[in-house]
Amino acid sequence: MSVLSALAAAVIPVDPARVREAADHHDRLTKPRGALGQLETLGARLCAIADAVPPPLPAPAAVAVFAADHGVVAEGVTPWPQEVTTQMVANFCAEGAAINVIARRAGATVTVVDVGVAAALAPHPRLVDAKVSLGTANLRIEPAMTLAECDSAVTAGARVARELVEGGARCLVTGEMGIGNTTPSAALIAACTGRSPAEVTGRGTGVDDATLALKVAVVTDALARCGPPTDARELLAEVGGLEIAALAGFCLSGAALQVPVVLDGVIALAAACVAARACPDVVPYLVAGHRSTEPGASAALEHLGLTPLLELDLRLGEGSGAALALSLLEAAAAVMSEMATFDGAGVTEKQ
Amino acid sequence: MSVLSALAAAVIPVDPARVREAADHHDRLTKPRGALGQLETLGARLCAIADAVPPPLPAPAAVAVFAADHGVVAEGVTPWPQEVTTQMVANFCAEGAAINVIARRAGATVTVVDVGVAAALAPHPRLVDAKVSLGTANLRIEPAMTLAECDSAVTAGARVARELVEGGARCLVTGEMGIGNTTPSAALIAACTGRSPAEVTGRGTGVDDATLALKVAVVTDALARCGPPTDARELLAEVGGLEIAALAGFCLSGAALQVPVVLDGVIALAAACVAARACPDVVPYLVAGHRSTEPGASAALEHLGLTPLLELDLRLGEGSGAALALSLLEAAAAVMSEMATFDGAGVTEKQ
Repeated sequence: MSVLSALAAAVIPVDPARVREAADHHDRLTKPRGALGQLETLGARLCAIADAVPPPLPAPAAVAVFAADHGVVAEGVTPWPQEVTTQMVANFCAEGAAINVIARRAGATVTVVDVGVAAALAPHPRLVDAKVSLGTANLRIEPAMTLAECDSAVTAGARVARELVEGGARCLVTGEMGIGNTTPSAALIAACTGRSPAEVTGRGTGVDDATLALKVAVVTDALARCGPPTDARELLAEVGGLEIAALAGFCLSGAALQVPVVLDGVIALAAACVAARACPDVVPYLVAGHRSTEPGASAALEHLGLTPLLELDLRLGEGSGAALALSLLEAAAAVMSEMATFDGAGVTEKQ
Repeated sequence: MSVLSALAAAVIPVDPARVREAADHHDRLTKPRGALGQLETLGARLCAIADAVPPPLPAPAAVAVFAADHGVVAEGVTPWPQEVTTQMVANFCAEGAAINVIARRAGATVTVVDVGVAAALAPHPRLVDAKVSLGTANLRIEPAMTLAECDSAVTAGARVARELVEGGARCLVTGEMGIGNTTPSAALIAACTGRSPAEVTGRGTGVDDATLALKVAVVTDALARCGPPTDARELLAEVGGLEIAALAGFCLSGAALQVPVVLDGVIALAAACVAARACPDVVPYLVAGHRSTEPGASAALEHLGLTPLLELDLRLGEGSGAALALSLLEAAAAVMSEMATFDGAGVTEKQ
């Protein structure tokens, strides 16, 4: 059994009875029925995840930023130099990046995990060394990873999830950094959703029309090269990335530990699609933090049946959009635990 | 000069140069240009409000929940008994309502202000007594308020804003409670936007088709009775409500004090439309917290040119949707103050 299959086997399907109980609970609170809209849906989801009504507060949250490099940058799919991955890891460690600022405001920790940055990184207290290789191969012309490398990256992501939860985290947040990683994400999303490369490939951190056309060609070639995907593991190894494989393991491990896993943008959604392919039962444990502007993000959200909490036209990654949504998860849980009931508060119900 | 005019005169137009400077500032931060989407737009807005780049953190925030009753309930526009206004005021004071829970999570205070509840209320440390009358008259058949009552309510709202800011609040949040108050809100929004009553009248906290048709008829009759509105004050007095008048004063006073005023749902938006009619320069100081499911909310947002931060299908009021958005305001400001720059962090820019 592959590590992906082993992780999938540990995920317990959520009990739909908790969702019904959550609706009954919401209807006793001092507000018109359904008046909190998607916050009630989210609260019910948290009940299902924790198997408890009301749910525990999903705090403190922990962001894991998985960093890796991509051989496909040799194709010219991004205007950013590859060394920016290393530079941004240093920025995360120095707490100067957007995810650091947003996580700090949200009361969440940030752990940076090197699963495959193309340089030797200096040790840092905030940096976990789980380097599998110095980045993937060029997925246009050969498999991005060996199956063994893929397994190692999945294992690293799962281990980080477990350690964060053992350390007290009650909510996990997907973060990533990897120059070029919207290209493998588009390939994975095309393969999982059945959409065409042109439909799911986007401008990432900002590419021109010519580069966008090149990205679509690269994704098309990569999928043609490897043929129809057989299983999630092979797909990941063929056209994925080390940080994406780690995120797939992170999602499955978080689900097995019954904590909500808040998804960021298109990279996290690509990993979630792969995790869902290995284990459809993982999906109810995933919360879509926001809708990125990347077209692949919307395709993946629809495929997974997830409604994002925020739509702020973000396209940064790092976990930023997911971390911005954390206060909504906490509010959804707090409302269920802390609001008065009609009976308790002596408020008359609608006639 | 009416109190509304005096408050309007105190609002300083924001300087559009701050918005341009904010964009330059964002472009120096370690992220692709524009990658934080609407969070950057919000940050720029906070710069314009405070006349400073980067802007001060809009925290702590203070929610003011203005409560009042409405003579129009005699028409049968709501299935909730009028005494629920009083009961919910007690619930707010006991910290059991949704706004209490959400504000607590957001680190915001909640002040409850009686501007016209139809009952004598027992004193409470959290309750401000600014009662103007025991509720409005039935706006279908006569003016809801006298001009003097309207002025008193506007003054009360402005005073609460000033006292909260003097007490340390750096962000104001509009809250309200008043059984029946979606009906005057629809009337005000129809009058300010030029939309028909049928377009802007909604189901409020949940009415059936027959009651919705009745609400449209009531709004239509009220606007026919008073004729084309002359100015904001007269419009408020004819078809408004005491808490809506207070919210209009609250918005104008907050703007004059150069703090962001976060708008909740359709009631707050009705007040904002009236405030904007008295003073177009108030609009840049207003932040739309969310898009309520009430059709009048979308009409008012479009009229004011505001893009809501959240779209969670909320229809509760109390300030709940605005308070849920507070963490986004804080993140938008924190990003501008705390993120590293490309130069400072030694990160290479896009080629």
